[in-house]
Order: sequence, then structure tokens, then C-alpha cells
Amino acid sequence: MTSQDELKKQAATQAAEMVQPHTVLGVGTGSTVAFFIDALAAREKAQSLELTAIVTTSSRSQKQLEQNGFTVSELAAVDHVDLCIDGADRVDHQLDGIKGGGAALTLEKNVAVNARHNVWIVDESKVADPLGGFPLPVEVLPVSAEQNFRRFAKAGLEPQFRLNADGGRLKTHYGNFIIDLAVSPLPIPAGLADYLDHTVGVVEHGLFLNMTDEVLVAQSDGTIAHWVR
Amino acid sequence: MTSQDELKKQAATQAAEMVQPHTVLGVGTGSTVAFFIDALAAREKAQSLELTAIVTTSSRSQKQLEQNGFTVSELAAVDHVDLCIDGADRVDHQLDGIKGGGAALTLEKNVAVNARHNVWIVDESKVADPLGGFPLPVEVLPVSAEQNFRRFAKAGLEPQFRLNADGGRLKTHYGNFIIDLAVSPLPIPAGLADYLDHTVGVVEHGLFLNMTDEVLVAQSDGTIAHWVR
Repeated sequence: MTSQDELKKQAATQAAEMVQPHTVLGVGTGSTVAFFIDALAAREKAQSLELTAIVTTSSRSQKQLEQNGFTVSELAAVDHVDLCIDGADRVDHQLDGIKGGGAALTLEKNVAVNARHNVWIVDESKVADPLGGFPLPVEVLPVSAEQNFRRFAKAGLEPQFRLNADGGRLKTHYGNFIIDLAVSPLPIPAGLADYLDHTVGVVEHGLFLNMTDEVLVAQSDGTIAHWVR
Repeated sequence: MTSQDELKKQAATQAAEMVQPHTVLGVGTGSTVAFFIDALAAREKAQSLELTAIVTTSSRSQKQLEQNGFTVSELAAVDHVDLCIDGADRVDHQLDGIKGGGAALTLEKNVAVNARHNVWIVDESKVADPLGGFPLPVEVLPVSAEQNFRRFAKAGLEPQFRLNADGGRLKTHYGNFIIDLAVSPLPIPAGLADYLDHTVGVVEHGLFLNMTDEVLVAQSDGTIAHWVR
């Protein structure tokens, strides 16, 4: 295991210790989250958590959870989520961030807003102040995607349709396109989020603002920074 | 033809006269719009309009347009729409309105926001001040529909899932559910629109505010009122 993986594993183990028995847990996706699922399984083995339910944002995490003996529920089947553990593509010191590198931003945000407590686990390379250094994904309806692309271009947001390996446009789980806004750093994240929320044809965007309560950062000096909002 | 239909036909004919040659036309849906398509066909016969393109918001209108010899394009294929003619479920004297009774609000709004000029043709029964008297349709992603339903209920918005004739939940063209907010009159339409725009899991809602430039109202006294923003 590389030292970076060793660090991610430490952060993931720390996150697994936050999970309380008899609660509803949300589990995101990513390399650090994969370590989290391993750590959760180890904790479950040592002390049965009797979790009320687990929901997740990807088929990959679902598979890994099920392989470890956990039962996965649909978000629709739970009243709320007590704690959601996820990764992020970028995070700033206000605990705001960018997600959607894996094109699952819409499901991830739907789980996050319905969670009472959100924790991100990231490595140091994801920290960015001001927020940027990663294209901001915007999920758009195909019907007006061309018009919104031109609108974003005129606004100086440097849009690019996300493509598949074959050069065609990537389609999300919901049948939509992703337009990545390449501008960096992002101009006033809260203002940009507001603009995108009001843009007809935008299903969701990758700005996760005022949503995350704690961040565990695996740092290259071998320590885990613990940020609390 | 009933006198109400006669009135709708008059309003539709007046709307057809607004169509300029060599422009891109958007055509909505509804009983008055059906009269508009007839009137447009009559105008085209008398004087070739050589329209650059026509886009529409429903397969019903598309069929009627094609039966009258018009070619229908996808919104994605046009740079913009010069004029869009549509109906509405409710409209107030600020020319704001509610649409979505036919569950096509998302496509209708995507066409409307990309049109330079929007005209609604309605009969007098659709006028409501303050705006209300018709459930406000909200198109929501199934994944968080339960959570959003409960959120709307807690906020006093009297939500109801729209059902099919068989009692199952209606699915939109985009695979989503419609939650109708039964509260009437609507509490501060602009504030409610802002709240819904920011609600994660809401794809679109039926409040069309600051979008419509003119309204033709077929009145029971036999006259056509012409409202201009």
C-alpha cells in the first residue's frame, strides 16, 4: 500500500468511528470511501452496529457494502439519513466543495441534503482555496443543452460537454448531459450556485455549499486534519 | 362550434397575425393553440411565411403542424426562438402564470426561456388574481420524491402526487414524478419559485414568472383583451 493510500485508510478509519449504532447511514463513492467501507465492516465485526438502514450513491459502493454483508436500501425507503460519509473533488476551508467528477452529482446531492450530518473524507490534493482547480460539473437536460452551453460560454464560464471514451457525449444515470465549467477559480461560488439553480434546463450542479459539517483531510505530513463547520 | 370555441378561435387568429415571415416559431399545446395552428396554416396559405423553423412542446401539436404541411425541428437544432405561442392554466394581470396541467411544464419552460417573445392565448376562465385556483405542478426526481413530498407538506404546501387513471404515479416524459401543490392562492409566487429553484430534487416547476410578454384573453363578453407587459 502506498503512503497516500495508508493516509486515506487512516482518515477512513476515523470516519468509521463516527458511525453510531441504530442509525441510518449514507455512503458515497470514491477511493477513500472504499477504505471507509472496509473500516465499517471491521467495526461491525468487532461491535454489531445494528444500523437501521444504509443508502448509497453508487453501484460500486453498493456492491462493496453487500460483499461485506450489509443490506442497502433506496433513499426513497428511508425517512432521513443520520450521517453521510462521502468524498469530494475539491473542498475549501469553509467546508464548501465541488463534486461530480464521477458524474453522480445529482444522486450525491439528493442524499446529502437529506442527511442530518455530512462528513467528507479527502486527501490533501483536494483542498483548494479559493474553490477551483477542478471543472464544475453541471447536469443539463438534453433538450436545451445547446442553448445553455452557449449561455455559459457568453457568461465566460468556459463550458465543455463531458465526453465518453468514444468521443460521444456522456449520458448520466438520468439520461442527461454533463457540461463542465472549466473556469477556475470559480467566481463567487454562492452566486454561481444561485445562477445555476435558476437556470432552466439545469437539473443539478456540483457546488455543494453549506452542506458539509465535517471534513477529514489526510495530509502528506502523515496527520489527519479534522475540520468542523 | 360553441361560443367559447368561437372566442378561442378569434384569439388564435389574432396570435397568428403576430407571426413574422422568416422567423423561428415556438408552438405550445392546448385547445386554443390547436386553433392557432389552424389559423397559422390559413395564413401560410394566403401568404407564404417561409418560417426559418418551427419547434413545439408536444407530439399533439407536432402532428397537427405536420398535417398542415409544416416541418417541425428540435429545440436543440435552432439557435433561438423568435416568438413562442402557448396557452396557460392560470395567468394574473402581471402576466405571470401557472402551467403544467398537461405535465409538459419542463419542455414548455425550456422553450419559453429560449424564446425572445412569449405570447399566451387563454380564455377568461384562466385569469386569476392573486395567482391560484389551480394546483402548482412540480416535477421531481423519483430518488428524493418522498423526502420532498414531506418537506412540502411541512411547509404547508399541500402536496399531492399526480396519478394516472390506474392509480399509479404519473411519470413525465423525463421519467420523473409530478407533485401538485394544492395550496391556493399561492403564497408570494416569486418567493415560492425561488424556494423551488433551490430545492434539490426539483427538476422544474410550473411557475412562469417574468417570461410572458403578451397575453390574449378571449372574454365571455365576446371581446379579446390584449395585455402587454
